[in-house]
Amino acid sequence: MRGYIKKGDKEKVQNRLKRIEGQVRGVQRMADEEAYCVDVLTQIASVVSALEKVGAILLKDHVEHCVRESMEKGAADADEKIEELTAAVERFLRV
Amino acid sequence: MRGYIKKGDKEKVQNRLKRIEGQVRGVQRMADEEAYCVDVLTQIASVVSALEKVGAILLKDHVEHCVRESMEKGAADADEKIEELTAAVERFLRV
Amino acid sequence: MRGYIKKGDKEKVQNRLKRIEGQVRGVQRMADEEAYCVDVLTQIASVVSALEKVGAILLKDHVEHCVRESMEKGAADADEKIEELTAAVERFLRV
Amino acid sequence: MRGYIKKGDKEKVQNRLKRIEGQVRGVQRMADEEAYCVDVLTQIASVVSALEKVGAILLKDHVEHCVRESMEKGAADADEKIEELTAAVERFLRV
Repeated sequence: MRGYIKKGDKEKVQNRLKRIEGQVRGVQRMADEEAYCVDVLTQIASVVSALEKVGAILLKDHVEHCVRESMEKGAADADEKIEELTAAVERFLRV
Repeated sequence: MRGYIKKGDKEKVQNRLKRIEGQVRGVQRMADEEAYCVDVLTQIASVVSALEKVGAILLKDHVEHCVRESMEKGAADADEKIEELTAAVERFLRV
Repeated sequence: MRGYIKKGDKEKVQNRLKRIEGQVRGVQRMADEEAYCVDVLTQIASVVSALEKVGAILLKDHVEHCVRESMEKGAADADEKIEELTAAVERFLRV
Repeated sequence: MRGYIKKGDKEKVQNRLKRIEGQVRGVQRMADEEAYCVDVLTQIASVVSALEKVGAILLKDHVEHCVRESMEKGAADADEKIEELTAAVERFLRV
């Protein structure tokens, strides 16, 4: 099964993930150099936030494209997709 | 101001951050190859979780060491450290 | 605009919200009686979790019903609903 | 074991919990009347946020008072309190 990222979003997602990778390496350096704990925590919180923003973009594209497509295919397909979608959101919320 | 990571924890934190960096690159690949959106979301949720676990280790070491030290130094130091600590936790909870 | 809660879910949601109200009153009592802070925090974390579970049920019903309906009506309606849906999820994640 | 809420905070916490109880009843009414799902979700997200703000106040008072006291009593007491504190924060973050 193929995923789908909207044209304009794909580059945005890729750039953000590049930046997130750099932030993670920044956190590694902070840990290596024993930077002040609260600063490291603040940096980690900011990476978490950036990752969730990427997640929100992917979620939107997924609903716009895959869920919509499944609804056009018929009820059974759509039910499965919606089940899967809410499970993904729940994993984010960890409920 | 220096941070502090407990001896046993330092290597653990470094290894986890290495693994997290790898996971972020994995997410990049998934986005490049347009892997199925829900799988990407699941992977992102798992990186977020791993980052917060590292945050929890740092938080513990910070209280054990820096906050404790500040309390030994006296009330004013400790108040500042506690203020800072709760602010860090709030940034995580985004309250 | 009307909301929609699936038949089986409505009672479940109502029961859970009743229980959550009771839990909040329990937290009030704990605060009044100065119960041990960590126990109060644990209780609050459990209320948060219960609320998010209710949110997840509503979200699922919303996608199953309202978003689906909007997709049947046409692209413009659906776009608006999806925009609104991801905004709601983002408010939960506070991204 | 007794908890501790700072004088100025106790009334604040009690008032906020009263308001949260009212908000939960508001959500019940919204569910009863099948208010628009996204509005209910928004309201739930706002209750979650309010609860976590109360949690942050209690956390601060707990560190300021109970953790500090434990540190004055000696290493063993403090270790236990710090363990307990990070566990409480982890329950909030669900890591």
